[in-house]
Amino acid sequence: MNEFELIEKLTRSLPTNKSVVTGSGDDCAVLDLGIPRKLLLFKTDAVVEGVHFKSDAPPEKIGHKALARCLSDIAAMAGTPTAVLVTIALPKTFDPAFVEGIYAGMTALARKHDVAIAGGETTTNPERILISIALIGLVPRGKAALRSSAEAGDAIFVTGELGGSLAGRHLEFEPRLTEGRWLAEHFHVHAMIDLSDGLAGDLRHILKASRVGAELLTTSIPISRTAKLASKAESPAKPPLLAALTDGEDFELLFTVASKDAVPVLDAWKKQFPKLALTCIGKITAGEGITLRDKTGARPMTFHGYEHFA
Amino acid sequence: MNEFELIEKLTRSLPTNKSVVTGSGDDCAVLDLGIPRKLLLFKTDAVVEGVHFKSDAPPEKIGHKALARCLSDIAAMAGTPTAVLVTIALPKTFDPAFVEGIYAGMTALARKHDVAIAGGETTTNPERILISIALIGLVPRGKAALRSSAEAGDAIFVTGELGGSLAGRHLEFEPRLTEGRWLAEHFHVHAMIDLSDGLAGDLRHILKASRVGAELLTTSIPISRTAKLASKAESPAKPPLLAALTDGEDFELLFTVASKDAVPVLDAWKKQFPKLALTCIGKITAGEGITLRDKTGARPMTFHGYEHFA
Repeated sequence: MNEFELIEKLTRSLPTNKSVVTGSGDDCAVLDLGIPRKLLLFKTDAVVEGVHFKSDAPPEKIGHKALARCLSDIAAMAGTPTAVLVTIALPKTFDPAFVEGIYAGMTALARKHDVAIAGGETTTNPERILISIALIGLVPRGKAALRSSAEAGDAIFVTGELGGSLAGRHLEFEPRLTEGRWLAEHFHVHAMIDLSDGLAGDLRHILKASRVGAELLTTSIPISRTAKLASKAESPAKPPLLAALTDGEDFELLFTVASKDAVPVLDAWKKQFPKLALTCIGKITAGEGITLRDKTGARPMTFHGYEHFA
Repeated sequence: MNEFELIEKLTRSLPTNKSVVTGSGDDCAVLDLGIPRKLLLFKTDAVVEGVHFKSDAPPEKIGHKALARCLSDIAAMAGTPTAVLVTIALPKTFDPAFVEGIYAGMTALARKHDVAIAGGETTTNPERILISIALIGLVPRGKAALRSSAEAGDAIFVTGELGGSLAGRHLEFEPRLTEGRWLAEHFHVHAMIDLSDGLAGDLRHILKASRVGAELLTTSIPISRTAKLASKAESPAKPPLLAALTDGEDFELLFTVASKDAVPVLDAWKKQFPKLALTCIGKITAGEGITLRDKTGARPMTFHGYEHFA
């Protein structure tokens, strides 16, 4: 049983109550607590030494990554983060300076986005550092961008460039908070997700939640320079397209809008965010699964995105 | 550097914002998100295999404990829990049935208190299971029972009986949610905390936050039968009073009220909760530290409560 199968089984009959608008299965839980004009977003995300970061990674970058991953999920809901609690589980022989470095990285990013670190706890994990961030944020009622709202015919967009993040970008990426909010304020975003498991894997989350399929134009997929260089250096070479489709931890936004909005989104984006690429990579279809189209024709995509328990 | 020293250093200059009413240093963070008549409570708590539970503990009890600890913190704020997110970090060779058992234990307790499990995640922790719960709840404005509101002359109360929890009760305890809320609804609770580090350690948290001292009547402290029996069985014997003062994980409520409310609280409590003991164990003083008083006189208390990194 892999991670996704386990989650599916565990989440089949979770207790709910009248506060829950969207529970398990989206980037964040969405709760109605009676806040005028707003819903609450609630998210947790953990990073583990040796799994999500190497032991010799600079502690400031580890802290940055731990918080940025959570903020990225708020971005994918078009929300605004408010406050976090930080859980750090440490071996008994922890280095205080290292832990302070982790906090310094988190603090710098938190200040940048006006996020409060409202507490948390330290506990013991004897073999390795584990950092879990719990985050709450807000989103205007009616503006939360869910995974389940893609419609056949929608244009599919992705921000930035994909692939090769594990070479370094995964420790330094900027969560697309401003961009996610701007999109929902100016356009009717149908579905949105942030790319953590890889384009193919995360697109499948949208497709499954929305009960639709997708056709991707392989020549349109923006491949990062890192993925292209890595492909040349590796033996056997990993095709750059495969890296862009399946490498995890890009933390770019993937979203869909009605086809009539595709050109207006692109035009407005270029004016608003001239330094960050936005690319239309395909369309949502009524069928199932992902089809890859290039000049030689169309074929179903079979390989998977990154899975933690793979 | 121990856990408390590390936390004190880390929390000296955390980023805050206008939503934060009470940040690090109380049972829960308290946030003002513009909810009419209510404030948000926000809390995380983690349990780790081999640290907070043994590997052969029944998974349902592990799940119960993981959630009950968090609920206990909401109880100590006189709040009502709303929703949780569950993070489970697992070795790659996890047993799905064990994880389902953990969820079953959490789910049963969540349903009992109308708490939604609104999602969460599974991730990898190669050597041992770690469960972190993030919880949000609500408390009426003006009713949150902080650690920092004890006043000299207050009577100090504790619910239940103390000591020996690690013999089994720590896996089965009932969070005092109903009792915490009832107290705040009917009396002006000055300060409140739940007992996780042991009476002496947790009372010190109140004293430090409130800048006061305390005098405890040792003959009044309610000692659990388990602690008394354990004392007889152990060699060298751990005095039952020491167990009641320093054993961790009682998860009873410790609170203070003005001395004029002491008798009314006791009388009303006996009618409302006839099966759960409530005991006045001493008073808040203007001085520093904890003084223990018995028939032979008074002496300062020097031994500490349980510390995770001790």
